[in-house]
Amino acid sequence: MPLVDAEELQKHSSPDDCWLVVNGVVWDLTEFAPGHPGGADIIQRYAGRDASRAYNNIHAPSLIQNELGDTKRIGDFDAASVSRGSDILTPPESPAAPPPPTAARDAGRRPLQTLLSTHDFEQAASENLSAKAWAFFSSAATDCITQRANEAYFDRMWLRPRILRDVRDVSCRTKILGSHVSMPLLASPTAMCKLAHPDGELVIARGCERGGIAQTISTNASFPLPEITAAADIPFFFQLYVNKDRSASEKLLAQAEQAGARAVFVTVDQPTPGKREADERVKADAAVLAPTPNGAKARNDAKGSGLGRTMAGYIDGGLTWRDIAWLRRVTRLPIVLKGVQTAADAVKAAEHGIDGLVLGNHGGRSLDTSTPSVMILLELQKMCPDIFERLEVFVDGGIRRGTDVFKALCLGARAVGMGRPFLYAANYGPEGVEHLIEIMREEFETTMRMMGCTDLSQLHPGLLNLCDVNHWYADGAQIFPARAKL
Amino acid sequence: MPLVDAEELQKHSSPDDCWLVVNGVVWDLTEFAPGHPGGADIIQRYAGRDASRAYNNIHAPSLIQNELGDTKRIGDFDAASVSRGSDILTPPESPAAPPPPTAARDAGRRPLQTLLSTHDFEQAASENLSAKAWAFFSSAATDCITQRANEAYFDRMWLRPRILRDVRDVSCRTKILGSHVSMPLLASPTAMCKLAHPDGELVIARGCERGGIAQTISTNASFPLPEITAAADIPFFFQLYVNKDRSASEKLLAQAEQAGARAVFVTVDQPTPGKREADERVKADAAVLAPTPNGAKARNDAKGSGLGRTMAGYIDGGLTWRDIAWLRRVTRLPIVLKGVQTAADAVKAAEHGIDGLVLGNHGGRSLDTSTPSVMILLELQKMCPDIFERLEVFVDGGIRRGTDVFKALCLGARAVGMGRPFLYAANYGPEGVEHLIEIMREEFETTMRMMGCTDLSQLHPGLLNLCDVNHWYADGAQIFPARAKL
Amino acid sequence: MPLVDAEELQKHSSPDDCWLVVNGVVWDLTEFAPGHPGGADIIQRYAGRDASRAYNNIHAPSLIQNELGDTKRIGDFDAASVSRGSDILTPPESPAAPPPPTAARDAGRRPLQTLLSTHDFEQAASENLSAKAWAFFSSAATDCITQRANEAYFDRMWLRPRILRDVRDVSCRTKILGSHVSMPLLASPTAMCKLAHPDGELVIARGCERGGIAQTISTNASFPLPEITAAADIPFFFQLYVNKDRSASEKLLAQAEQAGARAVFVTVDQPTPGKREADERVKADAAVLAPTPNGAKARNDAKGSGLGRTMAGYIDGGLTWRDIAWLRRVTRLPIVLKGVQTAADAVKAAEHGIDGLVLGNHGGRSLDTSTPSVMILLELQKMCPDIFERLEVFVDGGIRRGTDVFKALCLGARAVGMGRPFLYAANYGPEGVEHLIEIMREEFETTMRMMGCTDLSQLHPGLLNLCDVNHWYADGAQIFPARAKL
Amino acid sequence: MPLVDAEELQKHSSPDDCWLVVNGVVWDLTEFAPGHPGGADIIQRYAGRDASRAYNNIHAPSLIQNELGDTKRIGDFDAASVSRGSDILTPPESPAAPPPPTAARDAGRRPLQTLLSTHDFEQAASENLSAKAWAFFSSAATDCITQRANEAYFDRMWLRPRILRDVRDVSCRTKILGSHVSMPLLASPTAMCKLAHPDGELVIARGCERGGIAQTISTNASFPLPEITAAADIPFFFQLYVNKDRSASEKLLAQAEQAGARAVFVTVDQPTPGKREADERVKADAAVLAPTPNGAKARNDAKGSGLGRTMAGYIDGGLTWRDIAWLRRVTRLPIVLKGVQTAADAVKAAEHGIDGLVLGNHGGRSLDTSTPSVMILLELQKMCPDIFERLEVFVDGGIRRGTDVFKALCLGARAVGMGRPFLYAANYGPEGVEHLIEIMREEFETTMRMMGCTDLSQLHPGLLNLCDVNHWYADGAQIFPARAKL
Repeated sequence: MPLVDAEELQKHSSPDDCWLVVNGVVWDLTEFAPGHPGGADIIQRYAGRDASRAYNNIHAPSLIQNELGDTKRIGDFDAASVSRGSDILTPPESPAAPPPPTAARDAGRRPLQTLLSTHDFEQAASENLSAKAWAFFSSAATDCITQRANEAYFDRMWLRPRILRDVRDVSCRTKILGSHVSMPLLASPTAMCKLAHPDGELVIARGCERGGIAQTISTNASFPLPEITAAADIPFFFQLYVNKDRSASEKLLAQAEQAGARAVFVTVDQPTPGKREADERVKADAAVLAPTPNGAKARNDAKGSGLGRTMAGYIDGGLTWRDIAWLRRVTRLPIVLKGVQTAADAVKAAEHGIDGLVLGNHGGRSLDTSTPSVMILLELQKMCPDIFERLEVFVDGGIRRGTDVFKALCLGARAVGMGRPFLYAANYGPEGVEHLIEIMREEFETTMRMMGCTDLSQLHPGLLNLCDVNHWYADGAQIFPARAKL
Repeated sequence: MPLVDAEELQKHSSPDDCWLVVNGVVWDLTEFAPGHPGGADIIQRYAGRDASRAYNNIHAPSLIQNELGDTKRIGDFDAASVSRGSDILTPPESPAAPPPPTAARDAGRRPLQTLLSTHDFEQAASENLSAKAWAFFSSAATDCITQRANEAYFDRMWLRPRILRDVRDVSCRTKILGSHVSMPLLASPTAMCKLAHPDGELVIARGCERGGIAQTISTNASFPLPEITAAADIPFFFQLYVNKDRSASEKLLAQAEQAGARAVFVTVDQPTPGKREADERVKADAAVLAPTPNGAKARNDAKGSGLGRTMAGYIDGGLTWRDIAWLRRVTRLPIVLKGVQTAADAVKAAEHGIDGLVLGNHGGRSLDTSTPSVMILLELQKMCPDIFERLEVFVDGGIRRGTDVFKALCLGARAVGMGRPFLYAANYGPEGVEHLIEIMREEFETTMRMMGCTDLSQLHPGLLNLCDVNHWYADGAQIFPARAKL
Repeated sequence: MPLVDAEELQKHSSPDDCWLVVNGVVWDLTEFAPGHPGGADIIQRYAGRDASRAYNNIHAPSLIQNELGDTKRIGDFDAASVSRGSDILTPPESPAAPPPPTAARDAGRRPLQTLLSTHDFEQAASENLSAKAWAFFSSAATDCITQRANEAYFDRMWLRPRILRDVRDVSCRTKILGSHVSMPLLASPTAMCKLAHPDGELVIARGCERGGIAQTISTNASFPLPEITAAADIPFFFQLYVNKDRSASEKLLAQAEQAGARAVFVTVDQPTPGKREADERVKADAAVLAPTPNGAKARNDAKGSGLGRTMAGYIDGGLTWRDIAWLRRVTRLPIVLKGVQTAADAVKAAEHGIDGLVLGNHGGRSLDTSTPSVMILLELQKMCPDIFERLEVFVDGGIRRGTDVFKALCLGARAVGMGRPFLYAANYGPEGVEHLIEIMREEFETTMRMMGCTDLSQLHPGLLNLCDVNHWYADGAQIFPARAKL
Repeated sequence: MPLVDAEELQKHSSPDDCWLVVNGVVWDLTEFAPGHPGGADIIQRYAGRDASRAYNNIHAPSLIQNELGDTKRIGDFDAASVSRGSDILTPPESPAAPPPPTAARDAGRRPLQTLLSTHDFEQAASENLSAKAWAFFSSAATDCITQRANEAYFDRMWLRPRILRDVRDVSCRTKILGSHVSMPLLASPTAMCKLAHPDGELVIARGCERGGIAQTISTNASFPLPEITAAADIPFFFQLYVNKDRSASEKLLAQAEQAGARAVFVTVDQPTPGKREADERVKADAAVLAPTPNGAKARNDAKGSGLGRTMAGYIDGGLTWRDIAWLRRVTRLPIVLKGVQTAADAVKAAEHGIDGLVLGNHGGRSLDTSTPSVMILLELQKMCPDIFERLEVFVDGGIRRGTDVFKALCLGARAVGMGRPFLYAANYGPEGVEHLIEIMREEFETTMRMMGCTDLSQLHPGLLNLCDVNHWYADGAQIFPARAKL
């Protein structure tokens, strides 16, 4: 492997000829940059420079080698060749400062044992995370109406506790897609967990292992899938954004099977990126303040350029029901559709032989004023109650309390997914994730006992008073069937 | 053209003999003043003085010549005749200071590329505009309940996204009253755009051209209609307040036809001016602080004297259905009624052969607690669904998001109108207006894709969950038909 | 008339022998004090002293002579007999300082012409009135839920404007109990108007004369009825709290007839005083801070001691339907029941030959969570619509806008009453009251025009959309008829 | 009784050999500590030390002797044996400072006579109590939704006052479980009243005696039951948490009978402790700040460790309907179930021969989003109205106004319970409790008069307008009966 000096490196500092140093190795990223999920801009900004810090903030060390292979590896970088006082290799200051080292970060944080609920984790994250990370994780589509409704509609369902039952021994164990778990709670796939903790998704995996629950790994995870699955002995599922380049997706599916994933969750609620204004605002403000190295003013067009937008560029907006057959061909894993939002599509999924559904709206991140997640579940109960016998139904979005888990299960869900809280807990390492799971377990068990239940098989809709939401699916509430064309 | 000196000018400084200098020309406004849409007071205040600054804040340079013709033009003003130190020609200080020059104004403004939504434009306008302009544009009737409801009721309609459709290619093109446009969004008529930008309506026209949409021009535009239509190559419509003096309206209609307007939008929801307290408060407070030149104390009677009130003085409160025949006689343009608020009147309009309807309540500026605009649309869907086949239905009021456009179209609207946001965008020039349109287009296209739609013909009410508003038109909700007398 | 000196006066300074000086005259109030509507305490506090200032804050100069006659008039007070430096005749400092003289008060007030609505008058009153007066006028029962609902429920009724009607000429004239008035607005009876203006009810009378409307005079008015009726040429009505001592009421009724009152409004919604905490808090706090003259600590028992409570002591809680016959015997005036709150009692009133009803809940001052006033009106429309042909129905409580008046008339009311706003306007003198009436008239006429109406006979329920309140009287909403016993 | 010196005492300073000094007496608490309702931790913290201050904050002086008897009493402590300057006997500083002596506390408090309502008492308590006591008393489960709903749902029921009835003489007297009381208000059982006042439950008893109402005494009262019942001559009821060790409960029941309790209220709505975050936060924060004496860091596990949690350790989660028979065997007292939350369980209770029910949800302290208390009452009225003839129904939770009492009685309740307000009033001693009762009585009597009622037998549901809550039990609102399995 040749040694590349600074003078040589700087000869390749344009978009058309783009070399970068990452962790002491020189890579040629000219061809890769345009297809970079995070956007070409961020790579080309570092052309002829050292991008290690920016890279490490986001990606696992092994990713670049796995992704590019040896052909794009030019050589090792000769650090001694940099002339004293030169700052040409200094990476341009990122508008969002990198997070301080762990020790410093820990100093000002609320101690883990003072966090009593998912809300406490959220509050702590808003204090601990960088502005950019907080904006990316916490933001939702436009006016955040669906995001708030996801939580609020659980609170509009009242519980009807039964008394004088022996509730000393409560079991919350269940099976998800054939895998045993200690409770009906699933870590949802979340992108770029490295923004929350240097060890990213590995931290969530280790915490889930301690808590005995399953994890779903995002296509956009910071770490390669095999590294995550190697980190813990739990059931893993793999979330797939289908790539415009189907062969890329096929490669990912093969990798997932090999790494032991037990099902693939195909995301269907984001054919195009959602508009998350908080996320885009961080980028828009930064673009105004910080000119790009070449002096050109960064442009923030109407399509936005937040983290969410730039990462979603490769997703195939042309995915249709016909592609289910393709999926079946290229993987033996059970297939779950993630982001089903109507009873009609749930029935269609069953007809297509799908194994499971995640009801939800991408945590309110896709389309604002779309139906709150638990209300989709109610729609299935009202309109196609037999669906729960035909496939496994999960619900994701707005779950923050043990009572929410209980309500979802009463309405027919096999388990619930929770996303943002796991990211916020990951900031505290595996202990944080474990603490979060124990809080949810304790709340859920308390709810079981208070409701007079000892086993998940005892849950049913009659334990809820749905008076405040029943008008959603009253006769005619769905309106205009005669005009329906779609 | 004779030269008029200062001494002569000051001989004509009473309401009964009222000369003014405007941009170097002396005009006799004695006869015109009582019929001035902006009130006689503001003209008579400048009798025997130079009114250029006040005039230019509001009106296009050409307007006075177009309006008065040569007969009232006395001559050019001899500026040299003003004695040194004399301030008799100085215009009295207006309570609302004139806006600073453009460059100064730009200095403190949020950069255009940081504005991500109509809400951002509104926020920026509240910071950038003069207090008087902001009050005039943003205000609504009395307690602003309808204004807020116009927006809020869109948010009470939930979306039901369909999945796994090929949404790579989305078309938003449509036809409005026979004219092709790039999307179903229309710039609503708004008065006095010069308060937002020196080039007033011209700016909106140029921005709409870049965005490929149509514009409606107000009777109370700051610039003469032909100057606006000359500014851009887009479909224009002309909004008409019918004058008590019908010949004045006939003259305007002829001018509109000649200038190429493609339809006339006759306003029917404001037979008398609405009470906009924020607008009137600016004037009321000013009147208390600033005595009129002749020492008399300005009077703010109970009828109010905000900009909205004074401009509306010439509108004919006696306009009835019988006048449709008159309109048909005096113009060949398609006729649209702007401000229809009940299904009963929609049906009546169809029976009168009207070509289109704008459902709305004047942006909440006419009568508070009148029906929110999108709910009028729902009333038509419930009570006379065939109306949508008989004429084109538009809705105006409360549209702020691409999802709002989508919902209106699902309920049968051909397109939507948006007013205030265009004024706020005009403050940033044509680029601002273009940026606004692109934001709305991007949001609307994103909504189309998220909903699984690629063409406007696919939209229908079944894509909405109307659970939270369906009680509006439930059986009996309309009440007391037996007692109806009107 | 003998001259009484200070030494003699001070011999009568106990509850059992209680002389006071009022405006230079010495009165023996020993017998009167226990029946004083404002409580014995406030009189006995001044035993042996000069009470002029406290008296004049509340009462008209003539009241004491009218009430007590000559028998209790001991003589004139010899002011020269007070020894220098003596403060024994100085009235104890009232916790609530007396209002400053008019001129001083005017200095800091918002100018009348800047007040644009009833809300502005309320805001101004909160700034201008003494804490005690504001508390007494503005307060309502306990948590003020009904007070707020009185206003809010008008806002939950939507208007359905009709277009293209000739609305140039609008008439708001109507008849109330046989008397012609310029609009369907009535000044409700309000107690102790002197707290708002030194000329108290006289000011309201003079303002109503300018505005052409009628006034109702409270039993607890600051001025004697004949002085008020002499102040203006308008229709007057007399509000009666029936006294435990019926002969006192008979005397008042005779006085009312003689003074030209055209009807008697018998209050039936306050058989016991309501609990108005703001009012009582002023008194409670004062009692803690200011010991009584004799050193005893003032007691604030659980029954409260606000102005409202102390004034209500003489009201007869034993008044029943049987007393209607007594009323008919002792007066020839039409009888109106003020404070009817159910359809059942409205029907009962018609059966008893009552001439009119004021629907309402004492402005929310009697019983919290009692039915909002406009909803009582709706109850009559739904349950006994023929009642409107049998007697005149008024509604009082929550009217703040011209749209409120319009809605009440659509639902069958003959006219509406408004209370607090008249008190707040009285603070500005007759001009204030006139300004208030003109604001309401302008708003009401604007509403008429916007709705397409020119005459009160055209108003009917179909002009309203009652969707948000119709569930109030849906089938079964009234519940449990089988169990009703009362 | 031997004298124990400091040197000897310190030999017994481990969990396995644990002596403590309490008020001059040395006790061996080794065996008792693990079963201590307040947790073993707090006792073992004082092993070998003087625990008097911590003990007296919580417990009555006599409690330790009653609980442990003579066998664990080692001897008197020789205070002279403590070496000068030694602090080994000084109790470790409690994180929550002890309340200041009464006199000091009184200094800054709002005077009792300025408190006009239960809300005022609550406000005063939030100012007067220690942070720990306030957290323990005021907290409720997780997001406090049920706690707030308990109050709010009373406000959603409107009153329909009837007029012209003779309401001079009103009687509020009634019988509760055979005992005469002056009004239908009951002091609910509340734990650890000593945190509010040094004389704890004795204060409530004395205040209830003055007010003529009954008191329910908690199993977790600060004082022994016989001391409380000896303090006042009123009807007492005994609240029982059934102990895992049934013989302990039997002992308590025997004691209650002997002390004259007239019924036993068996709590059935808390088979496991609720999660009250405010309560746990005080402890969690303290644990972080204050290391335990032995240097180990206090652990705040996910199960929480607030006062509520630690006290609930002995409660039997295995209590079932079958245990009713056991209760009947071991006590002759009438049995009331406290915490019934469904009509189904109310019917079941009647079938088991239960004498009374307290409908409620433990003041919102057990399970969040469980049904608001007054809505349980409505459920019984709608679903099993005959239940009110079969046993006495009480309702507890959210009662804050006289109108609330009235509404509960209209819906069939025999009386209502009120908890937190009595604790807040106890802070002011017996006068405070008496003042609270008089406020409630005055409000209730006022409500009776305003409603046209003079006797509790006249109350019925028709006096309420339930329009805003009737959808709770509309047809189908309860949903899915076919699927009900429990």
